[in-house]
Amino acid sequence: MIRIAVVGHRAQSSGDFSLNDLPGGAGRMDLLCRAVSSSLFLSHGMRRDVEVTLILLGPPEPPVTIMFSGEKVRYLNPDERSAGSLIRKALALPRGTAFRESTRGVFVRQGGLERLIAEYPFAVLDEAGEDLRKAAVLPENYLLSDHLDFTGEERELVSGCPKFSVGPLALHADHAITLMLNEHDRRSGGWT
Amino acid sequence: MIRIAVVGHRAQSSGDFSLNDLPGGAGRMDLLCRAVSSSLFLSHGMRRDVEVTLILLGPPEPPVTIMFSGEKVRYLNPDERSAGSLIRKALALPRGTAFRESTRGVFVRQGGLERLIAEYPFAVLDEAGEDLRKAAVLPENYLLSDHLDFTGEERELVSGCPKFSVGPLALHADHAITLMLNEHDRRSGGWT
Repeated sequence: MIRIAVVGHRAQSSGDFSLNDLPGGAGRMDLLCRAVSSSLFLSHGMRRDVEVTLILLGPPEPPVTIMFSGEKVRYLNPDERSAGSLIRKALALPRGTAFRESTRGVFVRQGGLERLIAEYPFAVLDEAGEDLRKAAVLPENYLLSDHLDFTGEERELVSGCPKFSVGPLALHADHAITLMLNEHDRRSGGWT
Repeated sequence: MIRIAVVGHRAQSSGDFSLNDLPGGAGRMDLLCRAVSSSLFLSHGMRRDVEVTLILLGPPEPPVTIMFSGEKVRYLNPDERSAGSLIRKALALPRGTAFRESTRGVFVRQGGLERLIAEYPFAVLDEAGEDLRKAAVLPENYLLSDHLDFTGEERELVSGCPKFSVGPLALHADHAITLMLNEHDRRSGGWT
């Protein structure tokens, strides 16, 4: 199982955003939607061994955690609006501290990064990290930030996590996810 | 200069599609929009040395070629609707056999794959190709298909092109583009 978590610093935590304005009104939700897509989609199938978690820190009631299970998810297509629509449905559900399923394979709870990194040991994908291609053993769980850097408080939380980079340039989170998964694919497929 | 061309077998060749239904009514235009985004966007900037060309083969007047110049393009954001909106504007322009600029850095002409591959020597990104990481010299120009395989006629046209693969699994075109560009980034940045 590969777990991918992306922090959306301004991503709305209520479901009343418009699917026609994912970048603006929804707080760069477009980026999180593409992260879901690059985490879960193959050309003709899905990555059933991947879970992707979004941490929404925008108004009105952050933090919210939404998890897409590649094994269980249904009704998801690769386009941004499709993931956005399932995120809206997840945010429309009354939520507590335990995960509840909003649509097949999509789960939502109140809570954020502090709780998530207490549950799993994450590596951070960050342009300042060690080259992932050179890692002797690949991590199982990866944490990324959206278009904004981690805050001081978040950096404190992840200060003990190993850091890996996928290349010499700073990339969008969805592109970094594609590169990380390719490294897993290559090692699983004997392509190294 | 890196040139990337993607064939959209069902992508509409008129601009009257809805930005709210890029996958359906517009003929998997969502995939072409993500290909534009993964070709041109870095985290905080654009790939000025990349051109991405879309070949639209859907109704009503195919083939149409639309080219985004990373050096010149303006008004483009990373979300699918943004590229979709510039494609609509390009398709609204009366077109001839020479490229005309529809918005800053976006160009459109009548014509398709046969003409394009006569202009530049393309390599094909295809899961059956040689591992791109192992290429002694990286190609400059890359051709990809959308969610559909190349037709028999297209396969004939590209039969003389070298073929490269980015990994052991069949991936969406935008993900393959991200992986290909990363190989260029790594070699330029001394990361091999």
